[in-house]
Amino acid sequence: MKLPNHIGIIPDGNRRWAVKNKLSKEKGYVFGLTPGMKLFKLCERLGIKELTYYGFTTDNTKRPLIQRKAFTEACVEAVKMLSKEDVSLLVVGNTDSNMFPKALLPYTIRKNLGSGGMKLNFLVNYGWEWDLGKTQHSRTTNRHSIISSLNSHDISRVDLIIRWGGRRRLSGFLPVQSVYSDFYIIDDYWPDFKAEHLIKALKWYNNQDITLGG
Amino acid sequence: MKLPNHIGIIPDGNRRWAVKNKLSKEKGYVFGLTPGMKLFKLCERLGIKELTYYGFTTDNTKRPLIQRKAFTEACVEAVKMLSKEDVSLLVVGNTDSNMFPKALLPYTIRKNLGSGGMKLNFLVNYGWEWDLGKTQHSRTTNRHSIISSLNSHDISRVDLIIRWGGRRRLSGFLPVQSVYSDFYIIDDYWPDFKAEHLIKALKWYNNQDITLGG
Repeated sequence: MKLPNHIGIIPDGNRRWAVKNKLSKEKGYVFGLTPGMKLFKLCERLGIKELTYYGFTTDNTKRPLIQRKAFTEACVEAVKMLSKEDVSLLVVGNTDSNMFPKALLPYTIRKNLGSGGMKLNFLVNYGWEWDLGKTQHSRTTNRHSIISSLNSHDISRVDLIIRWGGRRRLSGFLPVQSVYSDFYIIDDYWPDFKAEHLIKALKWYNNQDITLGG
Repeated sequence: MKLPNHIGIIPDGNRRWAVKNKLSKEKGYVFGLTPGMKLFKLCERLGIKELTYYGFTTDNTKRPLIQRKAFTEACVEAVKMLSKEDVSLLVVGNTDSNMFPKALLPYTIRKNLGSGGMKLNFLVNYGWEWDLGKTQHSRTTNRHSIISSLNSHDISRVDLIIRWGGRRRLSGFLPVQSVYSDFYIIDDYWPDFKAEHLIKALKWYNNQDITLGG
């Protein structure tokens, strides 16, 4: 079976899940933590080399304060939980803004934790414009020089993006690393994650003809 | 009905269509011309404001010569056909390379043709790295300054991307303008285009909740 080297995770639908379960919207985020750990464990067992979670974006921070607090706390908690695993962990996002949680500053330099292992990236207060905005080059068409000028330069090309919650869009997720990614959409909301979702996505990916434009 | 302002078209599957129809691969491209005109006419009637066709990419030019000639000729022919319509036409791509067809050079400056009308963009010898490579700015997070530094700066944000041929990926299509695009995938190959494909995509789009991250 052909496995993706790098999987991008867009864990969408927390608020819609909360509403469906008669909770206020912001209560949905905390229910995304256990799914995140389950998914990580499954990927680790399968030998996936790199995993990137879409935490929250600079656009998301324009939402009501109570929601912003809730998703920020959930991201801090998620990173803390993952930091107890054997991973090479990196948090990527705009640390110049007040919206970046201070508790995650130590993780903005890649850290080998435990016995190392999977490359694990977590996007926190990430914005595509922030990611592209550091580039300082003139009329290059060299991919490596463009990639190395990204704020997210330490995140590899993404092979497979899995999005929960039914929407079929990137929502600004790593535009450069995603140019050739295959997308798999799961209609269930992220807090309803099941191992079967990942397995279905991987089976589908196995049947894709990866050409990279050639 | 909520219509997209700007639709991106990825007309994939020409070679697979040719093989299915017992033709050699390169013979498939010319069968994409009539679908392209039909789609344009439908969009014009619906009042779509902007349309971008994915012609060929710098990656595609690495394919066998016979295929490269065939898709280049098909693109030249498509642009010539579209130039007879009432459109504001622009061809976007890397003209510094030999792979760019000289016949299309006059169209690399936007031209109002006939009585003007829909903004129509055609990507020819386009590469995402070429598009991003001109940027010259330092640590900006201003979206407008990033967009205005793109080689494709005259192409607007894409609301809906429709891809034929079943693959669920962007293949380098306008990474910045696509950050919030909704994707609709049609399993049929592009030469098998039917009006019904577009209608289904638009009905689906109408039901999407466009949040732009908010």
